[in-house]
Amino acid sequence: MNSTERSQLRRLPNRGSHELETIHKILDAGFLAHVGFCVNAQPFVIPTLYGREDDHLFLHGSAASRMLRTLQAGAPACVTVALVDGLVLARSAFHHSINYRSVVAFGTCHLVAETAEKLHALTTVSEHLIRGRWDDVRSPNEKELKATSVLRFDIEEASAKVRVGPPVDDEEDYALPVWAGILPLRLTPGAPTPDVRMVSGVEPPNYIKSFREKQTTNGDR
Amino acid sequence: MNSTERSQLRRLPNRGSHELETIHKILDAGFLAHVGFCVNAQPFVIPTLYGREDDHLFLHGSAASRMLRTLQAGAPACVTVALVDGLVLARSAFHHSINYRSVVAFGTCHLVAETAEKLHALTTVSEHLIRGRWDDVRSPNEKELKATSVLRFDIEEASAKVRVGPPVDDEEDYALPVWAGILPLRLTPGAPTPDVRMVSGVEPPNYIKSFREKQTTNGDR
Repeated sequence: MNSTERSQLRRLPNRGSHELETIHKILDAGFLAHVGFCVNAQPFVIPTLYGREDDHLFLHGSAASRMLRTLQAGAPACVTVALVDGLVLARSAFHHSINYRSVVAFGTCHLVAETAEKLHALTTVSEHLIRGRWDDVRSPNEKELKATSVLRFDIEEASAKVRVGPPVDDEEDYALPVWAGILPLRLTPGAPTPDVRMVSGVEPPNYIKSFREKQTTNGDR
Repeated sequence: MNSTERSQLRRLPNRGSHELETIHKILDAGFLAHVGFCVNAQPFVIPTLYGREDDHLFLHGSAASRMLRTLQAGAPACVTVALVDGLVLARSAFHHSINYRSVVAFGTCHLVAETAEKLHALTTVSEHLIRGRWDDVRSPNEKELKATSVLRFDIEEASAKVRVGPPVDDEEDYALPVWAGILPLRLTPGAPTPDVRMVSGVEPPNYIKSFREKQTTNGDR
C-alpha cells in the first residue's frame, strides 16, 4: 500500500498506524462505513454497509444510487470506518476524549458486473455483517441482481488511528476531587425480535445469538 | 432551511424527510459525526464529536488539524450522523437491511474566535456528549483555548433517513422456513472504570451512570 500526503498522520501521530494488520482488524470489526466523494467540489458523505476481502472493500446498493454511479465513474473516494470504544473522562475539559478505532482509506472503485463475481461480492458483504446468514436465505434472482450495483473499492492508501486507556491529565490536575476514568461503550445486540409473519417453530440461529461476540475492543473491558 | 439538488432524496424517498424536528432529534441522539470535505477533488471523511445548537453544529479540534483549517477557509462541508438501530433479517438476501436513523447535512463553517463564544461552543459540545460534565471539571485555560480551534457549521440544507420495523419480503418468500426478524443493536455503556490515579472516595456521578438513557430508538425495543 502506498503512503502519500493524503494519508499522512498529522495529528497525534503516536495514535496512528499504517500497518496493514491493524487496518484490516478495524475494518473487520466494523460493518458501517462512511463513504466520501466529491461532485463539483461539493462533498457527500453516505453511510453504507461493506465487506472486506484483502485490500478491497465491496460496496453495494441500488443501481440508481448517486453514490454508486459517481464512484463507478472513477471518482476518488474516501472510506472511513470509526468504532467508539468509550468516553475518556478527564479532570479538565481539555483532556476529555474518546477511545476509538478508526480507518481512513483512500482509493477508487470499479464496477463488479460479471454475475459470479457479483454474487461473490454480495456474499462477502453479507457474511461480513453476519456470518452464516447467506446460506440460510433465498439467493438473489436475476431481477434482483440487475437492480443491485456492486463496486469494488481498491484501497490505495489508508491509515488507522486508535486511542486506548485512561485519561491523561496535567500533573497538577490529578489532585482534583473529580471522578475520572473510562465509560466503556459498545454496540450491543438485544433480544432478536421474530417477524410476526414468520413460519412457526423456527428458532433464531446461533449466528444471530452470537452476533459480534468476536468484536473485541482494545482493553477497556 | 433550503432544499436544492444536493439534498434531494433520490433513493427510497419514503424513508426520507426534510423535517427539521426529525433532523434535530437524530443529531441530538448521536454524538459522532463524519465530516466530509474536498481538497483538489480528493474527498476526506473524518470522524469527530459535535454539539448542536439551533441549525448549527459546533466542531472542535487541534488548531493544526487539516480538517479544521480546510473548513475554516470556507470549503463546502457535508456532515453525516448515522445511528444503527438493528439488523433487518429477511427471508431473501436481497431484502436484508438495517434499521437506522441518519442525517446528511450540507453547509459551511465559520471560525469561532472570540473567547466567550468559544467557551460557549466547547460547553455545547461537552454537554451534548455528556450532560452535566462541564461544571465538574477544570475549565480550559488560555493556553488550551489557543491550542483548540472551534468551528460553527451552519446547516444550509439537510435530509434525514429512517428505517424502522420488520423485514419486508416478497410475498412468496414468507412461506420459507427461515428465521426472520430484527436483531436490535444499541451503543450501550458498560461499568465506569475509575482511573487508578483518582482521588479516593469519589463516586461516579449520575450523569455517567445514566449516559444516553434518553437515546431512544425507533420502536425496535
